[in-house]
Amino acid sequence: MGEAGFRSERLCVVGVGLIGGSLVRALRAAGRCGEVVGYGRGRENLERALALGIVDRIEAELAAAVRGADLVVVAVPVGQMEATFRAMAPHLARGAVVTDVGSTKGSVVVAARRAFGEIPPTFVPGHPIAGTEQKGAEAAFAELFQQRRVILTPLPHTAPDALARVRAMWQAAGAEVEEMGVEHHDEVLAATSHLPHLLAYTLVDSLAQLEEEAEVFRYAAGGFADFTRIASSDPQMWHDICLANRAALLRMLDHFSDNLEGVRRAIEAGDGPYLYEVFRRAKRERDQFCGHRQAVARKEGS
Amino acid sequence: MGEAGFRSERLCVVGVGLIGGSLVRALRAAGRCGEVVGYGRGRENLERALALGIVDRIEAELAAAVRGADLVVVAVPVGQMEATFRAMAPHLARGAVVTDVGSTKGSVVVAARRAFGEIPPTFVPGHPIAGTEQKGAEAAFAELFQQRRVILTPLPHTAPDALARVRAMWQAAGAEVEEMGVEHHDEVLAATSHLPHLLAYTLVDSLAQLEEEAEVFRYAAGGFADFTRIASSDPQMWHDICLANRAALLRMLDHFSDNLEGVRRAIEAGDGPYLYEVFRRAKRERDQFCGHRQAVARKEGS
Repeated sequence: MGEAGFRSERLCVVGVGLIGGSLVRALRAAGRCGEVVGYGRGRENLERALALGIVDRIEAELAAAVRGADLVVVAVPVGQMEATFRAMAPHLARGAVVTDVGSTKGSVVVAARRAFGEIPPTFVPGHPIAGTEQKGAEAAFAELFQQRRVILTPLPHTAPDALARVRAMWQAAGAEVEEMGVEHHDEVLAATSHLPHLLAYTLVDSLAQLEEEAEVFRYAAGGFADFTRIASSDPQMWHDICLANRAALLRMLDHFSDNLEGVRRAIEAGDGPYLYEVFRRAKRERDQFCGHRQAVARKEGS
Repeated sequence: MGEAGFRSERLCVVGVGLIGGSLVRALRAAGRCGEVVGYGRGRENLERALALGIVDRIEAELAAAVRGADLVVVAVPVGQMEATFRAMAPHLARGAVVTDVGSTKGSVVVAARRAFGEIPPTFVPGHPIAGTEQKGAEAAFAELFQQRRVILTPLPHTAPDALARVRAMWQAAGAEVEEMGVEHHDEVLAATSHLPHLLAYTLVDSLAQLEEEAEVFRYAAGGFADFTRIASSDPQMWHDICLANRAALLRMLDHFSDNLEGVRRAIEAGDGPYLYEVFRRAKRERDQFCGHRQAVARKEGS
């Protein structure tokens, strides 16, 4: 049916932060929703979301927020998924489609199974590959998902019409929607997102321990600012993600560490050809796969 | 005397790439040089530099290039410093000031000592903290050093007037000039620049070895592109740097690896508070030290 078909008469957003808030802004801009109800643990952020016109109504109880909603988007940190599902389960309207935006999918499926007993066919696990290091309703903007990928990881018994509806929702927000298996998603994201965040956080924390700390940051150039930008992301959210995707992240980290040990030995031994080959291969890969983004970034003067 | 005093009647640039070419463009824009003579190993790049008006004259022999120059800027990869110094030594004009732009200073000082026998008091080791992942004369632009830091690492017997002249040159190009010891420079740069490059190269090469390689890069978001931008840098140049600053880089790498091992254990043990503290400290440090750059980058829509 495509995006033309998407509409929600009552959309409930649980967690009106950067992702949840931006999704609503995008759907509103496209004229795809009736009433939007917001719920969240941070009262101040929730009131801000109301004042900004992102949501029409806010509720102090999750039960009241999901009541009568035909679509519920759960946009809370992955560590809070189980408690959130559990609290909403008895209050969902019949046929209500539930989707989430968590960065890890295996842990969300486990959380849903625990909370719902059996995962409802109307539950569609999803993950928009988009974000900034900002957080909160204040940071939300309608264009966040334009031309970004959203990965849906339906389960064998997920209802086709629920899946189609969530797909259409993301398309209406401007995203390109793809599907893959839960485990595969978690492997791929461990590699491209979770491990890089872990390395950036660990690097900045390592440098902060140095005696020359102040100078180290003082002489940092543009490359360092780019490299460590993701270390300015929300610590709680990334703490949740690293624990939630523990197995895949550890496998990827060990693979990286083996490679780093090889590079270390080459430096120690003065093995120039080995280093050159690693660097040359990496540059070739990155130029090939990130060529477009890189060109854009350069034009922006980075 | 300050920047007002800088002028070169005959400036020789050895290696007319991004750095050497941009320096000349900046000095020309400020009206600070007479004739500019270019030399380099890549004939094509050198002819391009001539066609672009960066240099007035090119020479096929280093001896002819440095002859009569009052200032020689050596902008070759650090692995080529010794051979370059050796080839120019007998041909330098009396009193000619020589400076370099190498990213490692200990290795350049060793190279100069080997090549010159005794390091001339008119030799001033320097390092502009600026660059892009681009290379060659084509990439050079006059504004590259605007508000960027240049670190000079004079030796005990460096002549004060030579030091003042190189300082004035960089100020005329728009840079902020600072001084520090050779070893200290190499420690600080290992932390902020060499180690991040090593990690970025190693990460991209590690991901390229995965079965899911194509997908991994396909689902990489903006954070990944930023994190790995420095892996698009020149492999030969970074190969040289890693070997030239081996001792400091290995110390910094081991410090980082110890921290990474701690984070790994925390993930394995499900130690949330440990992870949260690392991430929180890192975010605080980065926001504090890179706050300005980050704000700029965000405005540019990254």
